[in-house]
Amino acid sequence: MKKILNDTELVEAQMIQGLAKAFPRKLSQLEDRNIIVRKVKKSGRVALVSGGGSGHEPAHGGYVGEGMLDAAVAGAVFTSPTPDQILEGIKAVATEEGVLCIVKNYTGDMMNFEMAIDLAQEDGITADYVVVNDDVAVKDSLYTTGRRGVAGTVFVHKIAGAKAESGGSLAEVKEVAEKTVANVRSMGMAVYPCTVPANGKPGFELAEDEMEIGIGIHGEPGTHRETLQSADKIAEILLDKILADLDYVGREVVVLVNGMGGTPLMELYVVNNFVQDYLKERQIIVYDTLVGNYMTSIEMAGFSLTLLRLDEELKGLYDAKADTPALKK
Amino acid sequence: MKKILNDTELVEAQMIQGLAKAFPRKLSQLEDRNIIVRKVKKSGRVALVSGGGSGHEPAHGGYVGEGMLDAAVAGAVFTSPTPDQILEGIKAVATEEGVLCIVKNYTGDMMNFEMAIDLAQEDGITADYVVVNDDVAVKDSLYTTGRRGVAGTVFVHKIAGAKAESGGSLAEVKEVAEKTVANVRSMGMAVYPCTVPANGKPGFELAEDEMEIGIGIHGEPGTHRETLQSADKIAEILLDKILADLDYVGREVVVLVNGMGGTPLMELYVVNNFVQDYLKERQIIVYDTLVGNYMTSIEMAGFSLTLLRLDEELKGLYDAKADTPALKK
Repeated sequence: MKKILNDTELVEAQMIQGLAKAFPRKLSQLEDRNIIVRKVKKSGRVALVSGGGSGHEPAHGGYVGEGMLDAAVAGAVFTSPTPDQILEGIKAVATEEGVLCIVKNYTGDMMNFEMAIDLAQEDGITADYVVVNDDVAVKDSLYTTGRRGVAGTVFVHKIAGAKAESGGSLAEVKEVAEKTVANVRSMGMAVYPCTVPANGKPGFELAEDEMEIGIGIHGEPGTHRETLQSADKIAEILLDKILADLDYVGREVVVLVNGMGGTPLMELYVVNNFVQDYLKERQIIVYDTLVGNYMTSIEMAGFSLTLLRLDEELKGLYDAKADTPALKK
Repeated sequence: MKKILNDTELVEAQMIQGLAKAFPRKLSQLEDRNIIVRKVKKSGRVALVSGGGSGHEPAHGGYVGEGMLDAAVAGAVFTSPTPDQILEGIKAVATEEGVLCIVKNYTGDMMNFEMAIDLAQEDGITADYVVVNDDVAVKDSLYTTGRRGVAGTVFVHKIAGAKAESGGSLAEVKEVAEKTVANVRSMGMAVYPCTVPANGKPGFELAEDEMEIGIGIHGEPGTHRETLQSADKIAEILLDKILADLDYVGREVVVLVNGMGGTPLMELYVVNNFVQDYLKERQIIVYDTLVGNYMTSIEMAGFSLTLLRLDEELKGLYDAKADTPALKK
């Protein structure tokens, strides 16, 4: 796999620096750490911290900014940040109103965020966390006990971020974040895998007529592989699994057609064309749609679908202003 | 090359429908044609029309909206739209104040846009055009006499769009569009080629240790190939060619680090990290930076760099409000 990089050991640091330098008026890198924070520290409001392994760009550094996160902590590619590093992120943005961490459900992330929160509490910071587990593909996997957290995490950043910005208490922000988790489901697939730079080998291999269904965002294998089918058929497979898991009929939803990093926008729009018709036929009302690379797996080619079920509260918070590199409202 | 599509003959139509369905409050598809227009037709202002072959998504349909284009006409993949089709786009958005077409410098696009404008004028529409030729890589190529129009086109959409929105006359909008062209330069490279769906074969082939320098956006070969080098070295090669072509020293610029479609954001941020330092060392002042997929070649892996040199007029228009799927200000 040819990659446009320098030293593979410097990938994470150079990427974080490159992101901060692209948005110097809005973002800062925290000292020489792989942590992105808002240029102007928020005060008088609950602060939000997220993070995880690198390789999911624009997640999570691209979601730091007004109306969304206060800090994003980036580990090595597909590796959880350490408790110490997460603690630095929490300390940098903590306010009197407290800190909520948004954690994707992976064993490493869970353990390290929990430990960082304990350490923060020992330092007198009020901190809590919410766990995102939106992937309906698999129950347990290589990296997880229970469902994995994937692209639905972006909606948790958005909605909890809006609630925090509007002055919600830590309990209220956590409650609406958990409500978002309860209403969001995702599933993904791939036609080509990704390769961790320091490793040099793809996470799985597929024949030239195969696709992998139910992939995660770490190059881990999915539920099964089968012969590549049409875009419409693939979208139907994913949607059927999502719709069987939560009752969306008659409800308003936000749709995310998410590219895995190497997927051309051409294909995502073709997928969206089917998704919109399929939901309409099932009396599911699309309130808004996002199409693009929101939660990726380096250069993996494939896509995931996410449906967020709305009520009036979630809709209002979804619509609230956000000004981040990767999502503007 | 595995692709997530349905019938290859329906790619363009399904993609245009998928784009329109993603933004139903802001965009419409013009009847059953591969033309994207604003949901609410502009009046009392100059209208802007662009387009070209498909395969460059989000260009150009993703740039239709407030502050940028009024219509985008999409041909088959890497094939100019027909004069008739362009004429339909012009007619759909034409105002009393006139229509300016923004054309990338390719033989097919030039011929067909010129013919469409002639036909529009015969119908009593005031129409004119501007040609974008920002690519410093090659003078003449497979598709072009003179320099090719590539990612710098996005800045022409932005700045001419802002001038039109502010009430500029057709002559004034054309003048500022030409000023933008005079101040923008780009150059690109690739590590993996792209494949036109209906064709099935990549536009060029590269060995596992090779890169192509000076690629265009149609899978056409570049100026030469050489052994893959580091991200920093590649960025230096492209920047040196751009900086030798126009004097940027002591000036403010907008930087675009553009992914070719299959390039992970990780790599684009690593490239940006170098670009920012390199420009700073040369007393070039970065006013703003865009990093992402703005003008692509389906799933080609690689990137291009674009530098727009600003003056006070261009800066003001660059900063003006834009609300389109692919660019918001």
